[in-house]
Amino acid sequence: MNSISFTKIAPGVYRSSTGKNTDSVLSLVGNEKKLDGISAAFDDMPMPFEGVFTEKVRNKTVVCIPRKLSERHYGPGLRFRGLATNYSVIHLRCDHYGGSDNGRTHVPTPFYLSDAGYGVFIDTPEFISFYMGGSVRADAKNPPKEQNRGRGDWSADTPSEFVEASFEGDADIYVFAGKNMLEAVAKFNLLCGGGAVVPKWGLGFWHRTHTRFDENDVENEIKLFEEKNFDLDVIGLEPGWHSNSYPCTFEWDKERFPDPQRFLSSMQKKNIRINLWENLFVSKKAGIFAEIKPYCGSHKVWNGIVPDFTLEKARDIIAKQHKKDHIDIGVSGYKIDECDGYDEWLFPDHASFPSGRSAAAVRNTLGILAQKNIYNVFRKENKRTYGLVRASAAGSSMMPFCIYNDCYSFEQYLTGLASSSFTGCLWVPEVRDANTAEEWVRRFQMCVFSPMLMLNAWANGVKPWKFEEVEDIVRNTIRFRKSLLPYLYNAFYTYSKKGIPPFRAMCLDFSGTSSQKTSELDHTESPYETLRLFDIYDQYMAGDSIMVCPVRPGEKSRKVTLPPCDWYNYYTGEYAGNGETLEIECELDKIPLFVKGGAMIPTYENGVLTVRCYGNEGKGFVYDDDGETFDFEKGEYALFEMSFTRKNGKTEGTIEKTDGEKFESEYKTVKFI
Amino acid sequence: MNSISFTKIAPGVYRSSTGKNTDSVLSLVGNEKKLDGISAAFDDMPMPFEGVFTEKVRNKTVVCIPRKLSERHYGPGLRFRGLATNYSVIHLRCDHYGGSDNGRTHVPTPFYLSDAGYGVFIDTPEFISFYMGGSVRADAKNPPKEQNRGRGDWSADTPSEFVEASFEGDADIYVFAGKNMLEAVAKFNLLCGGGAVVPKWGLGFWHRTHTRFDENDVENEIKLFEEKNFDLDVIGLEPGWHSNSYPCTFEWDKERFPDPQRFLSSMQKKNIRINLWENLFVSKKAGIFAEIKPYCGSHKVWNGIVPDFTLEKARDIIAKQHKKDHIDIGVSGYKIDECDGYDEWLFPDHASFPSGRSAAAVRNTLGILAQKNIYNVFRKENKRTYGLVRASAAGSSMMPFCIYNDCYSFEQYLTGLASSSFTGCLWVPEVRDANTAEEWVRRFQMCVFSPMLMLNAWANGVKPWKFEEVEDIVRNTIRFRKSLLPYLYNAFYTYSKKGIPPFRAMCLDFSGTSSQKTSELDHTESPYETLRLFDIYDQYMAGDSIMVCPVRPGEKSRKVTLPPCDWYNYYTGEYAGNGETLEIECELDKIPLFVKGGAMIPTYENGVLTVRCYGNEGKGFVYDDDGETFDFEKGEYALFEMSFTRKNGKTEGTIEKTDGEKFESEYKTVKFI
Repeated sequence: MNSISFTKIAPGVYRSSTGKNTDSVLSLVGNEKKLDGISAAFDDMPMPFEGVFTEKVRNKTVVCIPRKLSERHYGPGLRFRGLATNYSVIHLRCDHYGGSDNGRTHVPTPFYLSDAGYGVFIDTPEFISFYMGGSVRADAKNPPKEQNRGRGDWSADTPSEFVEASFEGDADIYVFAGKNMLEAVAKFNLLCGGGAVVPKWGLGFWHRTHTRFDENDVENEIKLFEEKNFDLDVIGLEPGWHSNSYPCTFEWDKERFPDPQRFLSSMQKKNIRINLWENLFVSKKAGIFAEIKPYCGSHKVWNGIVPDFTLEKARDIIAKQHKKDHIDIGVSGYKIDECDGYDEWLFPDHASFPSGRSAAAVRNTLGILAQKNIYNVFRKENKRTYGLVRASAAGSSMMPFCIYNDCYSFEQYLTGLASSSFTGCLWVPEVRDANTAEEWVRRFQMCVFSPMLMLNAWANGVKPWKFEEVEDIVRNTIRFRKSLLPYLYNAFYTYSKKGIPPFRAMCLDFSGTSSQKTSELDHTESPYETLRLFDIYDQYMAGDSIMVCPVRPGEKSRKVTLPPCDWYNYYTGEYAGNGETLEIECELDKIPLFVKGGAMIPTYENGVLTVRCYGNEGKGFVYDDDGETFDFEKGEYALFEMSFTRKNGKTEGTIEKTDGEKFESEYKTVKFI
Repeated sequence: MNSISFTKIAPGVYRSSTGKNTDSVLSLVGNEKKLDGISAAFDDMPMPFEGVFTEKVRNKTVVCIPRKLSERHYGPGLRFRGLATNYSVIHLRCDHYGGSDNGRTHVPTPFYLSDAGYGVFIDTPEFISFYMGGSVRADAKNPPKEQNRGRGDWSADTPSEFVEASFEGDADIYVFAGKNMLEAVAKFNLLCGGGAVVPKWGLGFWHRTHTRFDENDVENEIKLFEEKNFDLDVIGLEPGWHSNSYPCTFEWDKERFPDPQRFLSSMQKKNIRINLWENLFVSKKAGIFAEIKPYCGSHKVWNGIVPDFTLEKARDIIAKQHKKDHIDIGVSGYKIDECDGYDEWLFPDHASFPSGRSAAAVRNTLGILAQKNIYNVFRKENKRTYGLVRASAAGSSMMPFCIYNDCYSFEQYLTGLASSSFTGCLWVPEVRDANTAEEWVRRFQMCVFSPMLMLNAWANGVKPWKFEEVEDIVRNTIRFRKSLLPYLYNAFYTYSKKGIPPFRAMCLDFSGTSSQKTSELDHTESPYETLRLFDIYDQYMAGDSIMVCPVRPGEKSRKVTLPPCDWYNYYTGEYAGNGETLEIECELDKIPLFVKGGAMIPTYENGVLTVRCYGNEGKGFVYDDDGETFDFEKGEYALFEMSFTRKNGKTEGTIEKTDGEKFESEYKTVKFI
């Protein structure tokens, strides 16, 4: 047992290490840290550092992190079944979410939070197991009292003084202290490079066309959208665009896309971006096959060889080819599929790689390194990209990629949205199909307040107007998303600068939205009387001030918990309450939305910036830039500060450009309502 | 890459090793091998030994076992969701079955079968991962053809030339060859000590009473059974019999059982056996606490210390206490709970133990070593025991313990029954409750042809006569089980001598009951077009000749597949078919049963051995002994051979004692029908 000491590297950010660590995810990814974005001087540490110790057990390093028995934890890793993680055992490994939150996750970031106001990040690329405060040491100083199940009350949980984690090799350990969990998350995201800078077009409407579409099919699809008067910003091409997919060539199918340059130019003229699906397993028909083969692992996936993405050489070969064949002719980004595994569709844990790294380390970093590789190409071209990826890791907060998977459960989509805010990633639900017109609407609505609004028709070729009876509602739902651009863009600006996630679990913004109770004995299904931890997951925060309460398919009314501050109805501006629990009626064409008192919500439609004001007085801001490049770093942006007062039903607002002389914003006509 | 060579140790049984192995499950358990029971001289090896190779990758040993691309595999490990395992990745670890067959299983025995007619056993106590023929090496000599998902047919599966397995340390490797899988399984079971010798009373009716019953409650329960005229052979006492449980003292609660000796004597007079529930985690209130503490691990479970069962000293302390406080006064066996884990309720993977063994090795052998420890006490007393356990491993075939868990799915119970025959263990479904009278009946019926017929009322105190309208049917179902004793006892005799499991998946006895098809693309739930492997799991073989076709709750009729031989209706003796697929009507009071032509099924009721004969001529046997001791090893048994012919509706049978002069069987009056 060794105590380890921590060094302060920024206000409320501390670093230590379990030994001489040569391989960390952050160093592999190489994002620039944004710790100077930490303005808060919060330096108290609500967790006793001096109690952290490590030990070596066989080939593992064990880290024991003290906790109070009453602390509540969130993370590590993206989850879909529930938020708090107390007492659970989480064997993190990058994998497809297979129905239970056992650690197999698309985003196995070894970062967890405590509601005492801190976060812990153990930066290892290896598989790591977390014992979230339920495993008691035989020599515990403060062991829980022995209970007798034969008599009286009993609970299956045994709170421990430590969170314990074990992994091979050594690792850097970071602790982030804050006044609350949100500060700890924000500091973690800043360490990882801050939040993603996304292009404006990325916040529009995405449509992934049928996997076997050719260029004419795509052109026709776009015409249909025009005829139907549906907005369309990004078209995603699925596997069939490749000359071979599963495994991939990354080259155009010459029958379907005989002249990719011409196709991309045509798309550009229509202001439609093209996103390309790919997986990372290389076909022997690929032009890069021979060149990349020496940098590939011992096992194939879908008969394709597997580049060792930890090697710069392997990354460069792919980057060069992607730049030349796709990006230079106008491709806007990628959907990087299948890098999560599902175990069956990845290399074995005993695979070897030319870098000498373990299969675990290669697996856990495959998604993030593939993202970074793509990002770097666009970055050098001074272009923003936005895309999708099936796997990520530490460092993902700054990556303009959304995590997605094969799950299609409404509940699990909601949980994923909330949970992503603990993990430094963007999670995107998507619309694929529906059994009823009402479900169709509810699924589109859920995506309005998510990182990406996308219809994924890759397998069934479905169109947004599938259900005629709700065609108008779906069209307006997409327009609503687009009108929210200034508000959502603000949220991403805050993400980038301050590390605050754009979509957040309620418990990050408000304490008191969590609860627990001991489960009752179920004599047929579950004999353990465990502590069940509840958090609100079916309401969440989007941006600074909007609380989103999605309606589930089939739901005629729903419960809404108003945290303790003034809340207003988004649509009517009416006062809704403060701290109450409401039962609200659900209208088909509306997502129930509540806004914090004093908030100013900027929206933009038909050349008018309409600022919706809630309550009697308040402040807000609008951030703007070209939405396409990184010129904002050279001052090409505008920051407007706003305020409003309301008296006798009359709203008076002010807006003032406080920063960014060089940039001419299109926001000129402003209306306060 | 090292080739390894195999040595023949019995007909069709070969051994090798990956290196100097000091720790194997078989050596830890120490069962006597029964390889002399292998009479078949089948020596062909349907698998090319010379192709087996091993390699060391980081801290793992990798074993690659050649396979033909068309081979179908079963195992490793007990499963509940499906039988064949091709293409799956199975990370075996002893654990509660948590809803998916990913390797977390109550019986993580590293033994798998091929329908080419062989089995492979890698004898390591460590965690071991199996890649069941879907992971292709980059340097494969015979790689599958690259497919293009963008065009034409595609399947997500990539058949590999090898099954690959990886684990820490070294291990013995055994290969069992046979004319078919059943022979391979039988040889594996004989290597592990043969099949369990169970007491006759163990095949009667078991009832586990409410967890907080005292001795008077138990006496009253027995009176109720007598009044209701229900058979009762074994009473199981649940946690409340302990002075402390979760963690356990293993000592009687003096309020509930003030005089255990008197209580046990009373039970003995009524011919009722007592089975005691326990888990293995020691309370500090236990008398053995101080003595066993030095032999316990670094972490507690349910606040109890965890004995290192790989240490003889730890086992001895428990054995001594159990003998003195329970067995010597008449306890007949145990239900050893919670040794499987569920991860949350076990020590962490980085726990340390005084033997110096890994937590993995201690975990994987906890159940089997606890069984062996109990078994040894009874064995020395020349008494048979029969009980339940939540976890097992290699060596379990000879253990008179049934595996159970918290699952209550009818389908998964059926799959477990079939799957247990690949794994060398006995799986027991149990009755806990039902929503309808019909379900109640169907659940009892399913247990009739299982290793144990048990109502588990530990949590709800339910009685077999819960549903008045089916009280007679349930009573008769229990009697039916009891009347089958000679047949079931024969099946266990065959298990013990020849290693043939008493309850078997259809594919062990018959080829042609397996099928496969490529799944169709599901655009909302699963985008992979995988090969789905089907095996009959809802029919199974019990003993030599009976095919059991349980009726699911709610089912009015069901499909029955008759493998290619003559089949007869058990109840009517009518010819049912040969190779056909039938749709049969389901009667509430009958389990659909089909019997092989030529079979003789011995049953015993009211002092008469009734032998049911099927077809026009045939042979059979009856094995008998005292059912309680191991005196059969000294010749105290009887073996009867039988034959019959039937002409013009008249059945003529013969029975002759061919072995066992010393034993006087109670089977004296014999009737052939």
